[in-house]
Amino acid sequence: MAPSTNSVLEIVERRAVPGPDDRKRMDSQAANLKKELQSILISNDFDAEVSIQGSVAKDTWLRGEADLDIFAGFEPSMNRTEWVEKVIPALKKGLSRFKIVERYAEHPYLEFRSERVRVNVVPYFVVKKGEWKSATDRTPFHTEYMNSHLTPKTRAEVRFLKRFMKGIDVYGAEIRVGGFSGMLAETLVLNYGSFTETLEEASCWNGKVRILVEKLEGAESADRFDSSLVVIDPIDPERNLAAAVRSEKLWSFVAASRQLLQGPSLEYFYPRTPRTHSKSEFQRKLKDSEGFLAIVFPHPKVVVDILWGQLLSLEQSLVGLLQRFDFRIARSHTWSDDRKLGVVFLELETPELPRTRVHLGPPVARREESQTFLERHRNSKSTLRGPYVQSERWIVEKRREYPSSSELLRKAFKDSSLGLSVPKQLHNNFTSGAHIVDRDGIEKMISNRSFAEALWDFLDGRPRWLRLKYA
Amino acid sequence: MAPSTNSVLEIVERRAVPGPDDRKRMDSQAANLKKELQSILISNDFDAEVSIQGSVAKDTWLRGEADLDIFAGFEPSMNRTEWVEKVIPALKKGLSRFKIVERYAEHPYLEFRSERVRVNVVPYFVVKKGEWKSATDRTPFHTEYMNSHLTPKTRAEVRFLKRFMKGIDVYGAEIRVGGFSGMLAETLVLNYGSFTETLEEASCWNGKVRILVEKLEGAESADRFDSSLVVIDPIDPERNLAAAVRSEKLWSFVAASRQLLQGPSLEYFYPRTPRTHSKSEFQRKLKDSEGFLAIVFPHPKVVVDILWGQLLSLEQSLVGLLQRFDFRIARSHTWSDDRKLGVVFLELETPELPRTRVHLGPPVARREESQTFLERHRNSKSTLRGPYVQSERWIVEKRREYPSSSELLRKAFKDSSLGLSVPKQLHNNFTSGAHIVDRDGIEKMISNRSFAEALWDFLDGRPRWLRLKYA
Repeated sequence: MAPSTNSVLEIVERRAVPGPDDRKRMDSQAANLKKELQSILISNDFDAEVSIQGSVAKDTWLRGEADLDIFAGFEPSMNRTEWVEKVIPALKKGLSRFKIVERYAEHPYLEFRSERVRVNVVPYFVVKKGEWKSATDRTPFHTEYMNSHLTPKTRAEVRFLKRFMKGIDVYGAEIRVGGFSGMLAETLVLNYGSFTETLEEASCWNGKVRILVEKLEGAESADRFDSSLVVIDPIDPERNLAAAVRSEKLWSFVAASRQLLQGPSLEYFYPRTPRTHSKSEFQRKLKDSEGFLAIVFPHPKVVVDILWGQLLSLEQSLVGLLQRFDFRIARSHTWSDDRKLGVVFLELETPELPRTRVHLGPPVARREESQTFLERHRNSKSTLRGPYVQSERWIVEKRREYPSSSELLRKAFKDSSLGLSVPKQLHNNFTSGAHIVDRDGIEKMISNRSFAEALWDFLDGRPRWLRLKYA
Repeated sequence: MAPSTNSVLEIVERRAVPGPDDRKRMDSQAANLKKELQSILISNDFDAEVSIQGSVAKDTWLRGEADLDIFAGFEPSMNRTEWVEKVIPALKKGLSRFKIVERYAEHPYLEFRSERVRVNVVPYFVVKKGEWKSATDRTPFHTEYMNSHLTPKTRAEVRFLKRFMKGIDVYGAEIRVGGFSGMLAETLVLNYGSFTETLEEASCWNGKVRILVEKLEGAESADRFDSSLVVIDPIDPERNLAAAVRSEKLWSFVAASRQLLQGPSLEYFYPRTPRTHSKSEFQRKLKDSEGFLAIVFPHPKVVVDILWGQLLSLEQSLVGLLQRFDFRIARSHTWSDDRKLGVVFLELETPELPRTRVHLGPPVARREESQTFLERHRNSKSTLRGPYVQSERWIVEKRREYPSSSELLRKAFKDSSLGLSVPKQLHNNFTSGAHIVDRDGIEKMISNRSFAEALWDFLDGRPRWLRLKYA
């Protein structure tokens, strides 16, 4: 028998809500880093307001996995290029004892780990509400809004929802994930009242969901947003908090919500670490996947969000190329170690196509087009059979130039005339180093655990939460 | 350089227009057969008006290839079943020295050869214009109409058009051909004035052609006919003379008209007998046709028009079956010796399909359908991968039951649950004897000249007139 939702949530509460010791540790860490940042800015002659924001400031962070957001607020009169050219370098230098990762949302910010906590250092402009100069300017207003609306009870509910979203892999607004932001999760709980209510409502979402938690002037025009899910930002009627949520993540959340309500399990929140699969297990899986292809390529180390923007765009280009040449794609997925190696997985419905391609010509009634068609195809070397009249139009059977998807891809890596567009920062490494890895190559790569997990998930097809016992 | 149209038509005229001797022979043959028929009917106590009709009566027959139509007119009070049960048997008996073929249009009639002329003996009702009881009742009015409108000049033009239509294989309203009747060819020439004018006009036909050669009351409603080509019968505004013309034949006529006007050649009218192709030529052609399949089956000897109705319907069933199982068909064609052996040729775009079939499920938003979908596919043996959420809907990858078109067909010949519908009179022979013939089998069959020609035409794809030097 499946456990009850309440008994599961009790365990999640014990795990996810920080206790007095956790809070103490976090507060002192936050205070210390804030102070350090202030002195770096001052010593570089920047006049900035430093504050703690995000889930720590709102007390919605998950025990043991908090992101600590430290914001540095500048005068709106400051030029944004100064951030890029002066503030960020000064901060990097001042924080050089940490291993800094440069990241990018609407503008650059910094990320590093300190005592097992991920710290983000983010610049913004101190503006009046509504006079936004950059996307991060809203954050202090978000913090303030949530702090005046959340209660201890709803804070726990937010934690349940965030942890559930993490567990089913739909949490995070960064481009790699394309999922739900923390602010969005919080707003959903405020709107529906609790975690369970949110899941029950989400179970019935119908492809035209409009949520206004706050009666804002101008917010009634939510319909002008085109997305399936529109959640109006409670401090800005012009903004859809769910804009970054990709269709797949939205509907995965809906589907997983239904599954949890049908048969609750702690694994939705804290999924088991997937077990390592053996070479022979992979061999069996691969044997069943006639249409599987993996394109492996080196890439440079760039700001991870920019990297992922380009990786996803590359994936789309590859799919588009194959489709233009009549191949049908079931699924595609991109994996990267975020440092130097990228892989695009493809599952083709038709990895090989017949050598003959039926080419539809114009209706015979269109005299000039028919003439052109006959001139082009009658004596062409690539014409295998025909032209002939079928029903009311001309048809010709042509020799297909690329009956094999892998041959087409190999050609397209080198030959830009086939129309594969490779994003700028990936371009050099990709065109010189991309290759389709064969089964032996795959077997070597599965010693990389993260790669192996992504590959297994891809070959299995099912999302992990759909493999659970009670799902 | 291509010869001129006039120089070609001069030769056609010499060949196709009967001279005094031809006419004398035909007239005496017609008179003798008419007399014989009259005496058979009288000796069987039938009161019938016997007359010569059709192209001989209208003087539009082609030298050396006339059909002699002898019509027997009965009182409209007579019951039509009497034709079937008494008249036809009496005629068959009386004409038993000939090798009689029973044929069928709207009702049965007889066909036999006498001194190298094909003779049709056709019953009809002698009715007032408009009070038609059977389709053949119009024929005497057609004869009368044409005789009062055709001139020696236009009679020659009709002969050019008929001969052209025969040459490009679009002549004949019988179901096997689905082309232009003699009456239709004559009406087109009356309407456009000459053979060349007809071709020039046809070259511009645009998919909504309405022709009224006679200002008949009610004919202005030609638009109620749904076909691309509507030619109102000059003696019956209710009837489209082009109703039997299949799309393919109509547009082949249009296309061939343009080709002839661009580069005239006698071969459009009198195509060369196709040369016999050797086994190795066939082997080469077959090697290039990955997707070619021939289904061979015995069939009973039935009235040829009924046979062809059922053969064409069988062809459609086979194509439909394959399409339902995701196979794409480029072309199909049926050949029969009209006595006992039928063959359906198929050219498949995809003779083999991948073992994996991507099955689209419902949008996740549809909660109940999603539930049903998950129940059906999650633990099904035929599920290879998934289910997963893609964009806004469920997808699952299934094992395809019939990845091979020939295996599917072999199964469907025997197992009616796969939904292949075989017309009644073909049913027994087909289900017990149909098989897919392999390359060796094909090579044996090409000793049958008519089969070999049909096969070559099919493998080549191009209509013969498009293979001509000046085409």
